[in-house]
Amino acid sequence: MHRYTYKDMYGRVCRLANALEGLGVERGDAVGTLAWNHFQHGEIYFSVPCMGAVLHTLNLRLFRDHLIHQIKQAEDKIIFLDYTEIPAVEAIKDKIPSVKAFVIMMTEDKLPKTKLSPVYSYEDLIGKFLPEYSWPDMDENTPAALLYTTATTGMPKGCLYSHRMLYLDYLSALAVDAGYHVSEKDTIICLAPMYHVLGWGYTYLCQLCGANQVYTGIHPTVQDFCNLVQNERVTHMCGVPTVLTDILAAQEKGKIDFSTLLYVMSSGSLATIPEIKGYAKLGIHVLQPWGMTETGPLACMNFVRSDDWETLSEKQKFEKMTRNGYISPGVEWKVVTPDGRDVKWDGKEAGELLVRGPWLVNEYFKDPRRSAETWKAGWMHTKDVVTVDETGCIKIVDRLGDMIKSGGEWISSVDIESLLMQHPQVAKACVVAVPHPRWEQRPYAFVVPKDEFKEKIRGEDIRNFLKDKVARFWIPDVIEFVDQIPETAVGKFDKRLLRQRVAEK
Amino acid sequence: MHRYTYKDMYGRVCRLANALEGLGVERGDAVGTLAWNHFQHGEIYFSVPCMGAVLHTLNLRLFRDHLIHQIKQAEDKIIFLDYTEIPAVEAIKDKIPSVKAFVIMMTEDKLPKTKLSPVYSYEDLIGKFLPEYSWPDMDENTPAALLYTTATTGMPKGCLYSHRMLYLDYLSALAVDAGYHVSEKDTIICLAPMYHVLGWGYTYLCQLCGANQVYTGIHPTVQDFCNLVQNERVTHMCGVPTVLTDILAAQEKGKIDFSTLLYVMSSGSLATIPEIKGYAKLGIHVLQPWGMTETGPLACMNFVRSDDWETLSEKQKFEKMTRNGYISPGVEWKVVTPDGRDVKWDGKEAGELLVRGPWLVNEYFKDPRRSAETWKAGWMHTKDVVTVDETGCIKIVDRLGDMIKSGGEWISSVDIESLLMQHPQVAKACVVAVPHPRWEQRPYAFVVPKDEFKEKIRGEDIRNFLKDKVARFWIPDVIEFVDQIPETAVGKFDKRLLRQRVAEK
Repeated sequence: MHRYTYKDMYGRVCRLANALEGLGVERGDAVGTLAWNHFQHGEIYFSVPCMGAVLHTLNLRLFRDHLIHQIKQAEDKIIFLDYTEIPAVEAIKDKIPSVKAFVIMMTEDKLPKTKLSPVYSYEDLIGKFLPEYSWPDMDENTPAALLYTTATTGMPKGCLYSHRMLYLDYLSALAVDAGYHVSEKDTIICLAPMYHVLGWGYTYLCQLCGANQVYTGIHPTVQDFCNLVQNERVTHMCGVPTVLTDILAAQEKGKIDFSTLLYVMSSGSLATIPEIKGYAKLGIHVLQPWGMTETGPLACMNFVRSDDWETLSEKQKFEKMTRNGYISPGVEWKVVTPDGRDVKWDGKEAGELLVRGPWLVNEYFKDPRRSAETWKAGWMHTKDVVTVDETGCIKIVDRLGDMIKSGGEWISSVDIESLLMQHPQVAKACVVAVPHPRWEQRPYAFVVPKDEFKEKIRGEDIRNFLKDKVARFWIPDVIEFVDQIPETAVGKFDKRLLRQRVAEK
Repeated sequence: MHRYTYKDMYGRVCRLANALEGLGVERGDAVGTLAWNHFQHGEIYFSVPCMGAVLHTLNLRLFRDHLIHQIKQAEDKIIFLDYTEIPAVEAIKDKIPSVKAFVIMMTEDKLPKTKLSPVYSYEDLIGKFLPEYSWPDMDENTPAALLYTTATTGMPKGCLYSHRMLYLDYLSALAVDAGYHVSEKDTIICLAPMYHVLGWGYTYLCQLCGANQVYTGIHPTVQDFCNLVQNERVTHMCGVPTVLTDILAAQEKGKIDFSTLLYVMSSGSLATIPEIKGYAKLGIHVLQPWGMTETGPLACMNFVRSDDWETLSEKQKFEKMTRNGYISPGVEWKVVTPDGRDVKWDGKEAGELLVRGPWLVNEYFKDPRRSAETWKAGWMHTKDVVTVDETGCIKIVDRLGDMIKSGGEWISSVDIESLLMQHPQVAKACVVAVPHPRWEQRPYAFVVPKDEFKEKIRGEDIRNFLKDKVARFWIPDVIEFVDQIPETAVGKFDKRLLRQRVAEK
């Protein structure tokens, strides 16, 4: 366990900046990281952009070809990696000629044998340099970080953030109501990986306001997460819904003390009513943001407005809490129907969400073709299909590609999924479109039963459960029970793989 | 009493933008206001900048020559005024040729006879136009507002704010801890005039987060303020310390219900310990910001850090609350001694505060000479002399010009003033430097006794009170009891006038 103050951190950030200069890193050079969530990774977050270089976080779960593509496209000059990632990097070392050095984040005495060369140990490297650094003045549009987002087809797409964008995004994330609800008084833990949209920016955000941060380290387990929350008296936790669900179960089982925890932010996708209720029982409020790698990520935050608290029933409040919320102050947006008309603010009519704003990117890195598909006349076409209620609160009903077109009508796969997950015997559910000779497409459900109901649950139970909740034609034709649902590199259900699996049957 | 929603307001803002176009206002034109705090003034705050023109707020207490100077320098094309200001504008109407129309903020039937021409009534004018407007896309650096600040000598100095600066300032004012502590749940009342640094920006800030606003109207009294707080269930109030003191007295006397009030922001100058304690007794926290017209205004906010809450004694906490606080995230700063060295962060060594940042102006409007005196190498020299404690919390100890140089040592007039105001029989106190043949300068105190101690209090009492609190040479040579202390147009003690008064004796 490593524990230090921001002041101590600052000295090490300076040492690292000197070390980077020593390794030949110059203004505009990209520096890659392939690392878990820990304090050394956090130091790199500051040293690299503040000396004028570009932080390029690599996803630990990337496929080999994607890894090579990203490093080559970014032209990473140095790669910082955890010892766990040595085999992955050794396997590609001859295909990434831009990389001039590898730094393994540990002390020299523990450094394992490796074919990587030249190779340095992080601690011994920075120990050789002074804890002071003369930071350059830079234009606000200087590139600071390069992040990639997985694409439905083809290589990951890069988003280049400037210093200006980072500052604006995290300043907006400090805003009351519309922000992360993190203040100087808080201790936060982010379970989302730091390679995923800069770990939602907590490293920067906490520095901006002086909050304490807890990093989860290498190969953390759900039990580790729970213990850290209890022992570090964490007040604010962030993670994807599936992890949040696992944690809730582990907390209950282990009677772990969550009494300090006030907020849980559900990142990546929306928490469902059972998750929200589970945390609410412990007095914990679930926050729902919306964003993408392209939007910084924060572009929208759900909070229950004070007049809603006063007037809504408990049931209505929980329903409101499953929405994505209100677009951030400073981000412009509109929601348009396929024929280009603005949708009605009635909470019913759905359209695609279009956004633009001062901390949103407006192109993919070195990728004019795919940029042109996404940005049109300055607006980013998010492919998220949303409704807007009369207060301006948005709710994603589906991804453009995941909507199911059946008999000339739209079926929302997401809506069916959240209904399925409300069934008392269901742990997880995922619904995809499969081709149909008459209706064009039909919904097909993959369902993971809770452990105690495996082998017992039947498709008929599920269909009966849905009967009075959705239109008849929304009920999936096939309900397949599975032990688990495959996920993408960023922890979302891999609908593409599921569709393929059905197609191959 | 006028009461409406932001949605209703929006329609009127559109009508007004159409009306401005109808009156011939074009991109970049300045539009003056000479008005109290009310909803029509708030509408002008939006229509003028958002259509591409420049909002120019004129101080109701300006001297005639300053008024003419500002209108001429800004080249105001239209002036919006309250009926109370008709005589002031009639008196100068022949000296402000740029002005093409006057709009009096009332309905036509109430319009008084006036020599102003052409003259319109606000309500009838906007009533003729549609509640929809096609707002232009503008570069973020487009000028939005022109504000003037009084100068120690010479004409007021103009500060031109861009849209970018306004947005950044108010986004930072929404930040947890470092901001105004205003959220969607709040109802605010700003007692500072809207012509004074845009009334600290509450009009914009509240829109940005959805808070309710209460405007105080024409010629409000302290009793009006108290009634509005009670009747509108205000949660957040902002005003200068002298008004806050008057309100506290009126609240106590009238047993007015302040139970909804959570925060009071002391603007213009620092609240003293008695004021802070008086509000604390009612469960109300006093916030202390620091800023100037040149800084947006928000550049610093005092809040008691959570570790301080845990470790400090009650006395230490109150002392901490009299400081100016922590510089806003995004504003760069340093505190330098007269010989250009950074001060020690020990809470003792004093130096001049220098600032620069994305929402701070870096020149005075059409005034290169005085700009060059204030901005050097990109840094604004604030003339505020501050100390910095080990946590980075700053405290203004004096204005450069108000420090008293006695026998080669500095005496802080502000420190003596706040000690004097802690004397149980003293209502207000102001200390100025007067020339001295031997010591160069000596402190001279003007003291307003509390009503019940008038004629009873003696200079000896005061001197004895100070004896064990400051060095012997800090004790003022003369303590003059007065009924009131003259104030400047912005409600601060007029030290220049007081020095002059002593000189003429």
